[in-house]
Amino acid sequence: MKILVLGAAGMIGRKLIERLLQDGKLRGQAITSIHAFDVVEAQIENAGAVAVSVEAGDITDGATVAKLVAEKPDVIFHFAAIVSGEAEADFEKGYRINLRGTQNLFDAIVDQDGYVPRVVYASSIAVFGAPFPSSIEDDFHLTPLTSYGTQKAIGELLLADYTRKGLMDGIGLRFPTIVVRPGKPNAAASGFFSNIIREPLSGQPAVLPVDKDVMHWMASPRSAVGFAIHAAEIDGDVVGPRRNLTLPGLAITVGEMIQALENVAGKKTADLIEERRDETIVGIVDNWPKRFIADRAVELGFVAETSFEDIIQAHVEDELGGVLPS
Amino acid sequence: MKILVLGAAGMIGRKLIERLLQDGKLRGQAITSIHAFDVVEAQIENAGAVAVSVEAGDITDGATVAKLVAEKPDVIFHFAAIVSGEAEADFEKGYRINLRGTQNLFDAIVDQDGYVPRVVYASSIAVFGAPFPSSIEDDFHLTPLTSYGTQKAIGELLLADYTRKGLMDGIGLRFPTIVVRPGKPNAAASGFFSNIIREPLSGQPAVLPVDKDVMHWMASPRSAVGFAIHAAEIDGDVVGPRRNLTLPGLAITVGEMIQALENVAGKKTADLIEERRDETIVGIVDNWPKRFIADRAVELGFVAETSFEDIIQAHVEDELGGVLPS
Repeated sequence: MKILVLGAAGMIGRKLIERLLQDGKLRGQAITSIHAFDVVEAQIENAGAVAVSVEAGDITDGATVAKLVAEKPDVIFHFAAIVSGEAEADFEKGYRINLRGTQNLFDAIVDQDGYVPRVVYASSIAVFGAPFPSSIEDDFHLTPLTSYGTQKAIGELLLADYTRKGLMDGIGLRFPTIVVRPGKPNAAASGFFSNIIREPLSGQPAVLPVDKDVMHWMASPRSAVGFAIHAAEIDGDVVGPRRNLTLPGLAITVGEMIQALENVAGKKTADLIEERRDETIVGIVDNWPKRFIADRAVELGFVAETSFEDIIQAHVEDELGGVLPS
Repeated sequence: MKILVLGAAGMIGRKLIERLLQDGKLRGQAITSIHAFDVVEAQIENAGAVAVSVEAGDITDGATVAKLVAEKPDVIFHFAAIVSGEAEADFEKGYRINLRGTQNLFDAIVDQDGYVPRVVYASSIAVFGAPFPSSIEDDFHLTPLTSYGTQKAIGELLLADYTRKGLMDGIGLRFPTIVVRPGKPNAAASGFFSNIIREPLSGQPAVLPVDKDVMHWMASPRSAVGFAIHAAEIDGDVVGPRRNLTLPGLAITVGEMIQALENVAGKKTADLIEERRDETIVGIVDNWPKRFIADRAVELGFVAETSFEDIIQAHVEDELGGVLPS
C-alpha cells in the first residue's frame, strides 16, 4: 500500500500522516510507503517501519505532479490548496494552485494507462453560497460566493466525471469548519471559532468578534482525519456516481460553544473570552452555512462528534496531553 | 453596439444572428457590427446596414480568442461547443473545446483591463443528473452524468465567479431540449423529439424509439433565440450573484406531442410516425430530466411556449413558410 499525500504540511495533512503511521495499514493492507508532498517540507516524526519521503514542490508544475503520480500510489490524498482568504485576494494564484493544480493531478492520473487510484479530495462547505435554507440538504445547489469555493466545486465536478469514466476512483469531502485548530491564532475570518477555545484552554485571553447566537458547522481535527481514512477505505460502488459528500458535523452556536468550554474547563477559563464585535467578520460569517443534513455521508459511515464537549475533549487529549487548565 | 457570436454556424447561433439583423438593435442601442465566429464559416444572409464579419477558427487556441476579445464587443454570445455525444465519445476533445475553449474566452476578457462585457453563455439541462425529483427546482444540485454536462457546469461556476469579481458580466442559460430542430434527422439520442414532428410535417415518415409516456423538457428554436436576447438585455443587478438560470420550457409527453401534431396538421400527418422501440435510446432518455420549476427565470422575464401546438406553429411559420401539409 503506497500512499501519496499532497498538502502534507498542512494541519490535516500532518495529522493524517501521523494517524497512518500509527495504524500501519489502510484498506486492510500494510502501508509500505508514504510520499509527503507540499510547497514546504512537512515535519514528520517517523520512528516506524514505513518509508516516508518528504518533498517540497509546486503542484502547478505539471511535470512535478506527473512524476509523483508515475510512482502509482494506491491512494492519493489531495489536500493541497491555498485558503479562502488568499484565493480571494489573489485571483490568479487561487485558480493556478486550487484549480490548475487539481487538474494537473487528475490529468496525470489519466495519462497513466490502466491506473485507477483512490483519490481523496478535500473540498469544503465553501462550495455553497448564501442565501441558505435553515438546514442544507444533500441535494442543495452549489453557488459558491468565493473563488476558493468555486475552485473546490470545479474540482468536485472533475472528480465525479473522471471517476464516472473509470479514469480514477475519487471521493470528494466537503469538510466542515475544523475546530479546534491547534497552533497560533490566525487572521482567517473563521479563526475565532478555534481561538475562543484553544487560547483559554492554554490560559490565554481570546476575542469573540461575533454575536453569541451565530451558528456554524464544525468537526474536530480528529474527525477530519477519520473522514479522510474512511473515504480512502469506502466501497466506491456503494457511493455511486455522486462522489462528493457533505460530511457530518455539529451545528452549534458560539454561545453553546462557550457554555461547553465552561462545562469542561470551568468558568475561569470561559471568562478569558472577551466579546469585541468586528463588523467585517460579522458580515463574512453571516454568509456562511449554519447547518447541514448530511444524510448520505452518515449512511455511508462517516462519523463526527455529536457534542461540543467531545470536540474540546479531543483537543485536550490530542494537543494538551490530556491536561486541563488548573 | 458590437456583438461577438461564438458558435455562429450552429442552429441557435444562426437564428440568433438572423434575429439580431432583423431587430437592428440590442440593449436599446443600434447594432453596428456582428462578428460571427465558428469552427466553420457561418452562412449568413445580410442585406442590411450592420457590418457582419464571418470567421472560421478554433476557440481552443488562446491567441485566436484573445484577438476576438481585443475588439471589445459589448455583448458576447458564447454558444460554441461540441455536443453531448461527441464529448462523451472523445473525452480529451470535449474538455479541450467545451472547457478549455470557455476558459480561453473568460481569461481573454480578464486580460483586457476594465473591460466588462455582457457574456451570454449557453449551458444545458445536462448539468443535472438522475435520480431526479418529479419536478426539479432552481436550487437542485448539479451532478451531471456526462462529460458534456460536467464541462457546462464548470463553465457556469467560472462565469458566476468571474462575474462576482467584476471581471465580466455573465449570464448562463440552461437551455431546454430545443424542438423542433430544423434540418435533417441526426443521430443524437434526443433527435427523435424533433424528428417525429419535423419529418411528418414535410410528408416524411419518422420513427419513435421510446414509449409515448416519456416526458421531457422542451422549447422552440424561436424561444431559444428569445432567451439569448433577453439574457443580453437583462439588468445584472436584478439577477444577483446566482448567474446561471434554468430556463422555462414545456414538460410534455411524447404522446401529447403526437396529439398536438394531429391537432395542428391532421391524423394523416401524425400517422407517419412509426413506433419502433430502441432499447439504447430508451435507456439514455430514462436518465434525462422531465420537468423543471424554473421560477427564477420566469420571474426574470424569460418566456417559453406553454403549449406544444405553439411550438409546432413556430416551426411551421419559421421553417415551412407557414404551409401545413395538405
